[in-house]
Formats: sequence, structure tokens, C-alpha cells
Amino acid sequence: MKMKEVRVVIVGFGVIGRGVLQTLREKQGFIRGKHGVNIKVSAICEIDGSVISNEGLDLDKVLDKPLNKNKFWTDKKTRDVIINTQSDIVVELTPGNIKTGEPGLSHILTAISAKKHVATSNKAPFAVAYKRIMDSARKNKVSVRFEATVGGAIPIMNLMDECLSVNKVESAYGILNGTTNYVLSQMSDEGVELDSAVKEAQQLGYAEPDPSYDIDGVDSAAKVVILANALLGMDVSYEDMKVTGIREITPEAIDLAKKHGFTVKLVGDVLRLEVSPRLVSVDHPLNVSGSLNALMLNTDVAGDVTIVGRGAGSRETSSSIIADIVTISKEL
Amino acid sequence: MKMKEVRVVIVGFGVIGRGVLQTLREKQGFIRGKHGVNIKVSAICEIDGSVISNEGLDLDKVLDKPLNKNKFWTDKKTRDVIINTQSDIVVELTPGNIKTGEPGLSHILTAISAKKHVATSNKAPFAVAYKRIMDSARKNKVSVRFEATVGGAIPIMNLMDECLSVNKVESAYGILNGTTNYVLSQMSDEGVELDSAVKEAQQLGYAEPDPSYDIDGVDSAAKVVILANALLGMDVSYEDMKVTGIREITPEAIDLAKKHGFTVKLVGDVLRLEVSPRLVSVDHPLNVSGSLNALMLNTDVAGDVTIVGRGAGSRETSSSIIADIVTISKEL
Repeated sequence: MKMKEVRVVIVGFGVIGRGVLQTLREKQGFIRGKHGVNIKVSAICEIDGSVISNEGLDLDKVLDKPLNKNKFWTDKKTRDVIINTQSDIVVELTPGNIKTGEPGLSHILTAISAKKHVATSNKAPFAVAYKRIMDSARKNKVSVRFEATVGGAIPIMNLMDECLSVNKVESAYGILNGTTNYVLSQMSDEGVELDSAVKEAQQLGYAEPDPSYDIDGVDSAAKVVILANALLGMDVSYEDMKVTGIREITPEAIDLAKKHGFTVKLVGDVLRLEVSPRLVSVDHPLNVSGSLNALMLNTDVAGDVTIVGRGAGSRETSSSIIADIVTISKEL
Repeated sequence: MKMKEVRVVIVGFGVIGRGVLQTLREKQGFIRGKHGVNIKVSAICEIDGSVISNEGLDLDKVLDKPLNKNKFWTDKKTRDVIINTQSDIVVELTPGNIKTGEPGLSHILTAISAKKHVATSNKAPFAVAYKRIMDSARKNKVSVRFEATVGGAIPIMNLMDECLSVNKVESAYGILNGTTNYVLSQMSDEGVELDSAVKEAQQLGYAEPDPSYDIDGVDSAAKVVILANALLGMDVSYEDMKVTGIREITPEAIDLAKKHGFTVKLVGDVLRLEVSPRLVSVDHPLNVSGSLNALMLNTDVAGDVTIVGRGAGSRETSSSIIADIVTISKEL
């Protein structure tokens, strides 16, 4: 096997960016041995500057201290680095604004125009401008992969492309937000009110100080938009979604459901572009507990296939991001 | 996209063989459009002869009447057809003897020696001689793919290779036999004895007239052998397995488990090379009902990933077989 050298630019050095570099450092030998791909990091961009090394950064050094204490630190802006640094793939890992898609949308479109491939975990740009991104990628003949935008560690896009490659997806249903699933599981197991389950989730770091993005179904809906475009070939964006969160769910409602063999889950219905609390039979594959995510694909040949796993976590999510980097690298 | 023409020889024209050809006929346009692969069937082999056409058989004609009424019918034996018919891939779909691996083992080794790639749903040869087959494939520089041998429609090998490509599997647990899972689910839901649940499964066509192959855990154990070799890199065969079936399970035992929040499932433990009835928590992803199959992979980066789907059925299984044919074709 001939070794292929691939250069990546990492945009965004928060929890996810750090997680990707930590996993990359740990699994570099494995990836070289199994896939024949040697991944070098040419640059890491943050809002206040970048570290750049055309020979490849020393991951030990960039991971062990704040980025701006690094000897390769410069005040070069992200756009400039994306365009002008020697690289094959731009890995976009910034947090995104679900209304505008920024700053990720600009980063991704800039990378595509500069003929760089893209791997990303940033769902906002795809919830806002899926078609625009993919059209530009086609025009510029680059790959854009976004496995980690939906379901964290769970492979969904790649599952359909590579494993269920003979199938057409007819519909899909998902538990796509770990925070709300944790809150609903706690309400069911402990009989507590929503507010106290949310507080517990915040203490455990599962929920943000302002939990509305999760609780009101916004995060789930953004993921449904991506699945509708990617799996069902629709051309939709966030504004097409019907969204109801879990604020009105009471322990009494959950208890009543339980008595009849059901649980209450926040379900994303991809075909109907809807996120809403639904009754799920206790022995249904989508009845996953705690903060797990799950997606059921209704396919034309294989029938129903459900995949369950961790929807968040920087280490788990890095599995999807790096798999996308490896897939793109093999096509180069 | 340049269209690639691929010729396959189908060995075995039972329920699975028929299912593969029906799906192939239905999805031929889809596969050409999506993957750029045009699959032609050069021959179909049965125990009493073969139909052969170097231009590609007309699938309507071979599917609509008994094989030996076909105008291309000859008394040529399978071995001769595998070696001498123009083809790229041999698709082995005969039923196998779990002790000897035959006749599939000979078909597969003959194909490999003749430099043909292999796609198969036949688990017996791999439970008996995994290493011998894979060593021969490496030596002869051909691909051998066997997704359908474990889990029917559920992609497992391809999931690890293509989607979780950065991960190492540390252990794996599976519900790998739909018949026993159906029997245990019925015993739990209806409170009936094993014998009457087995009779019902037989009436529905889920269980064979002699159900011991399923009920005694033989089928599950053969699948665990394949997973241990393929996912964990072991070098083991069926005789290395510790196997306990479900004959001793009573409705009372299931009822007791239920009272404590558990179900009884026949679990294949891949790391420990063991098949045995185990208690599974009701909200665990492996608690799948009816005749569903499930596999939980414990991976080093993505964490636990579980995949659930149909473990049998000729149409569902053809999804995995044809996906393997397409994957091999793309590498040609």
C-alpha cells in the first residue's frame, strides 16, 4: 500500500476541534496502517489568529498549551489561511448560528471556491443553505462531507452511501438530541418535573445554561433538515420545519403513556419535516434511554434499519469527522 | 461517470438466489445510475445443471419458470461453470453444512483459485475455515465479501470498514438469530411455554421443521465465529465456541426477569466466544423485539454503536449481497 499524504486545515479550536486533534494524535498510526493515509495538520484557525506550519504542526505542542502561545502563532485571519495555506481538506468545526449559518457557511464556501475539500461537524450552514453548498461543491469538483452534523458518532450518511448502497430511503425517524432524550428519560425513570430534569442535565454538562435550543426542538429540527436533503433528496431549509419542543410534557403524561406500554420521545420525522413529542412503544428500536441518539431508516430493500449511539461528546464525534477525512483522502 | 460492466455467476438458486435475482432485476437501473455499475448474470448453477449465457441472462425468463426449462440449460456442473464461464464475481448462495462447510467451501475456494472475486451469504464455510479462505484470497489477490452471513440485511462488516473506519472494535454482543428472538419475545409477551412458541414460529415460517439449529444456538454460534475473525482479528472456528441454547428457558424465568426490569435474550458474546441466554435490561439497545436482530459494537473512539434490523428474509438479505457485489465492482 502506497502511503498518501494529506494536509488539513482545522477551523475552530473549541471542544470539538481539540477532540479531533487528540483522536488524530492517538490514531495516526492506525490510520496509516489501515488506510494508507498520513494526515498532517497544516494550520489551526481561531477567531484571534492561527498557527501555521507547511511541514505539519506538532500535535503534542498545539494540544499542550493555549494556541496563541505556540511558536507558529500569527494574526492571520481564517479566510486568508483557508485560501493560502497548502492543504487538501478544510475541517470546519466552529459553533454555528442556526439562523444565518455563520461563520461556518462563509468558511465552507470560501474553502470550496479555493478548491479545497470540506469535512465538518457544523450543522448550521447545512440547515440554512444545503443546496447552495452542494451546488458549489459540484461546480468546483470537491467533496463536502458532514457525517458529524447529525447523530455525532453515529454513521448515517456513510451508512446509506456505503453499506445500504442498493437502497432508497423512503422515510426516516430519529431521536436526534441527547439533552432532551436525557430529560425525558429522567422524567420517566424518576417521575420528576421537566424543570428539575433540565437542572440535573445542566449540572451534568448535558444541557446549556440556556437550554431552549435543545428543549424547544431547534437542534433536532436542524438535523432533520440535513437528513431530508441528504437522504431524501429534498431541497428544504430550517424555515420549512414544523417544530414542537418538550416544554409541555408533564410527568403525568409520561406516566399515562407508560401504563399503556409507551414512552414519550422527541421524534424527528424526516419525511414530514416535523419535530414533535410522540408516543413510542417500549419495545420499539427507537426507544433508547439516557442521552443516546437513534435513527430508523425505512428502506426499500433492507427494510427498517435502526442505528443507535452517542449523539454528542468531542471524542465520539471525532470518530465521524476523521472518518470523513479518511474517506476524502482515499478519493484524492 | 463511466459505466462499468461486471459479470457474475450465481451459485445456488433457492430462496436466497431467487431473492437476489429479483432485487437485481428491480434495482438494476438504480445501481447503474448511482454507482455506474452494470451487473450482468453470466450463469446460474444448481445441483442438477446450469444456465449459461456470456451475453448475460434475461432475468425475466430465468425468474418466471423452473431453471431447467430454460433454453440456456446445460448439464454443466458448478465447478466447471465457476472456472470456465467468463465472470468477475462468483456469488455463492447455497445452504451450508456447519460441520464441513460444504458445498460452499469448495465453491468458494475454486472461485478464488480461478481468480474470481466472491460475494456470499453462506456462513458455514466461514465458520469452518475463515483463515483458509482469507489467506487464499490474499494469495490470489481477490476480494471475498460476506456481509450477508451475519445479520442478514444489517450491515456489520461494511459498517466497521467504511463508516467507523477510524475505530477498533473492543468487544461485540449480538442478538443474531431471529427465530430464537421471536420465540423468546412470544414467551415474554404471551406467557406461553417454549414448545408452543416454537410451534407458532414454525407455522409462520420463522422456524424449520427441526428447530434445533436455531434453538440450540448453533446458528448464532456460527455467526459469532465469523464476527470474532472479521471484527476482532481472531483465528477461531466453530469448535472454539461455548454454546448454550434456549431449551431450558421457562415462562416463569422470563416473568421473574421482567419483574426486575430485564428480558431474557440469546446473546452472542464475540470476545468470549460464547452463546448463551442472558438477562438484558429492558431499556438496553439490544432489547429488540419479535424476530429482529441486533449487534452492539464497543469501539474505542465512537463508543457503543448498535445496529438493528432484519436478520433474515430473502429480499432483505439481498440488500447485503448486492451491496457486496457493488463494492467489489467499484474496486475492479
